[in-house]
Amino acid sequence: MSRILDGLRVVEVSAFIAAPLGGMSLAQLGAEVIRIDPIGGNIDYRRWPLAPSGTSLYWASLNKGKRSVALALDTAEGREIARALIAAPGEEAGILLTNLPASGWMGHAELSRSRADLISLRLTGNHDGSGAVDYTVNCASGFPVATGTDERPVNHVLPAWDIAAGLYLCTGLLAAERARRRDGQGREVTLALSDVMLASVGNLGYLADVAVNGNVRPPMGNDLYGALGRDFRTADGRSAMIVAISNRQWRAIGKATGLADKLLMAGAMMDADLGTEGGRFAARGAIFAVLEPWFAARTLAEVTSALEGSGVLWGPYRDFGQLLREDPRCSPDNPMFSVVEQPGAGPVLTPGSPLAFAGGDRLPPAPAPALGGDTDAVLAEVLGLSSAAIGRLHDAGTVAGPAPRGGTSP
Amino acid sequence: MSRILDGLRVVEVSAFIAAPLGGMSLAQLGAEVIRIDPIGGNIDYRRWPLAPSGTSLYWASLNKGKRSVALALDTAEGREIARALIAAPGEEAGILLTNLPASGWMGHAELSRSRADLISLRLTGNHDGSGAVDYTVNCASGFPVATGTDERPVNHVLPAWDIAAGLYLCTGLLAAERARRRDGQGREVTLALSDVMLASVGNLGYLADVAVNGNVRPPMGNDLYGALGRDFRTADGRSAMIVAISNRQWRAIGKATGLADKLLMAGAMMDADLGTEGGRFAARGAIFAVLEPWFAARTLAEVTSALEGSGVLWGPYRDFGQLLREDPRCSPDNPMFSVVEQPGAGPVLTPGSPLAFAGGDRLPPAPAPALGGDTDAVLAEVLGLSSAAIGRLHDAGTVAGPAPRGGTSP
Repeated sequence: MSRILDGLRVVEVSAFIAAPLGGMSLAQLGAEVIRIDPIGGNIDYRRWPLAPSGTSLYWASLNKGKRSVALALDTAEGREIARALIAAPGEEAGILLTNLPASGWMGHAELSRSRADLISLRLTGNHDGSGAVDYTVNCASGFPVATGTDERPVNHVLPAWDIAAGLYLCTGLLAAERARRRDGQGREVTLALSDVMLASVGNLGYLADVAVNGNVRPPMGNDLYGALGRDFRTADGRSAMIVAISNRQWRAIGKATGLADKLLMAGAMMDADLGTEGGRFAARGAIFAVLEPWFAARTLAEVTSALEGSGVLWGPYRDFGQLLREDPRCSPDNPMFSVVEQPGAGPVLTPGSPLAFAGGDRLPPAPAPALGGDTDAVLAEVLGLSSAAIGRLHDAGTVAGPAPRGGTSP
Repeated sequence: MSRILDGLRVVEVSAFIAAPLGGMSLAQLGAEVIRIDPIGGNIDYRRWPLAPSGTSLYWASLNKGKRSVALALDTAEGREIARALIAAPGEEAGILLTNLPASGWMGHAELSRSRADLISLRLTGNHDGSGAVDYTVNCASGFPVATGTDERPVNHVLPAWDIAAGLYLCTGLLAAERARRRDGQGREVTLALSDVMLASVGNLGYLADVAVNGNVRPPMGNDLYGALGRDFRTADGRSAMIVAISNRQWRAIGKATGLADKLLMAGAMMDADLGTEGGRFAARGAIFAVLEPWFAARTLAEVTSALEGSGVLWGPYRDFGQLLREDPRCSPDNPMFSVVEQPGAGPVLTPGSPLAFAGGDRLPPAPAPALGGDTDAVLAEVLGLSSAAIGRLHDAGTVAGPAPRGGTSP
């Protein structure tokens, strides 16, 4: 079986979500991703949530399928080994992925002295190199103010900017490596988390709407903007999201609920052309009024029976527990998932890459490494060090093997 | 100036956000991205928000820097031209990006008959090929239930799954093209929008927390989970997000606000070790009680003066208008942005790629094409058609040039 990125080697010096997710996404496509951490772990090594053993489920989930090397990065010797790993020869190696600042030995210019065609990908907070995290980027994005029903901003819980940044890093890395194979040149690539946010706000048309129309999207609860959609409460206290973008989807709602006649009346009552997205948006109050009692009179199971296979675009709301228990897509029946034994955590339903390559190029999900679990193997394979030399590095405290898992603070 | 993906050609047959964003992200790195639409535009061509001219700011924002070809895809002749464009020769061509179903002439097997090493990237709703959109994927993710303060689910307004899917498509496309250059093989790559969501929920540790601990994250308003952070209201009715992940950031809060002594008392009062993330999370109620009056007594400008340069990790909330007016990162001072004249919309502050390549590889942002604006040029350049042949296709209604912009329904 071939894995799509087989042969590519990336050295990652990172913490938290974005850069680790970038490295993990490449590892899930077959790249060799070596994450270097300080001995004892980086600042994210004990982040919540934790398993009873103290193993961070956060860290384990974001570092699956990587190799882990633990080095005394606070010593010149430890940094020298890191530098050697980053700059090690190989046409498909010499790639650094990091969210650490560019100062000192980790800077692109400094590392390029060891390997002229080095590719480095660096995530920063802001484009001027100053710090920012998902939370402090998100608050400026306009989305929390546009979310919910009133003036108080509502943060979404999903670290969406971190996720997008991690995937931009993958794209930038593969683009730079592609260019290097053509021109032999190394490259320094930077990505600011706030630029990911700002580009997204622009790409979705929000900046243009302000600039051209002076429009600032107000919060509208769970109503879709410019189309028909909202959540509805069911008789058993569950909720369902229902959406109509196409006319076919819209007609399906009337048919599946048996409310087509009443919905027609809603359009006439509101002087709206319900054959258009804008008309349905304008008349949504009346449409929702017709639909609400239909949902309120039915359990989620009854709603499901009525809507499944009807052509209605809809879905039930689930909490994380319901997602794992109820959703057949969130189970080993979905070829993306397998149950993986994660040391320190136990068997966990674990996703591989969502990218599916026809013909068997999809790697099954792997557990996260033990911190330092690959130190000796990587030093031998990549740097050609002998067992004796590796032993001396252990004795000197310059490198470490697998650390005991545990700890109770995040 | 070299552009990082120079030479790569992608044919996109798409609509809405994810696939268009994927193609646009590649175009912003220098790839030639040819978007094929039906004559008159695809289902997303008039989506809200609109400019007064009727131009869709949504469409224009998501299709910047592409070439546009308009074909009568409901005719055999139109589909034949699309097939020829997708399968046109060239080592760096033969790549299709689409969110259309795999049936009929657009299927990978069928297209591969014209070009054996074809790469196709296809976004589906669910892994079984059934339909889903961001809204109906998001409701099942657990995030809306965990967002806000009470039981009613809160949808975030950001189409986060679409954005992540677009970027996964970029990654998958570059990975498949890299593999093709090594083994000469075409590949069929599929990505399900719901798999993007499910993988993300797993990658962030939520599935493991349920599986291992039985924990289902409850809604906690704007409080961070497992660390210290929340929004605070200022004297002038604005809000600011404040976060402490590291101990250094935590100490900076006490210092910048002059409240270090009171915060120490909060820790003692709550029997919490405020030198740990978990301790600060446990004592957050008392900590917030100390900080609230400090913010409530100050305007956002005063808060900014006190916190800027203090080492405190924080940011102001902004709506989309405030983002454009107030945030210096959202201006031409940020090298990612330029003011671009978008036909039908006017001058708009427009982002390029957030990926910055040192040494001038970053393309300035470009406007979106007119629908069909590149039809003739692409038919001549890629298929080698003569002006006479192109003229005959126009006469037959098989292709179309630039369509008049306009229309008022989304």
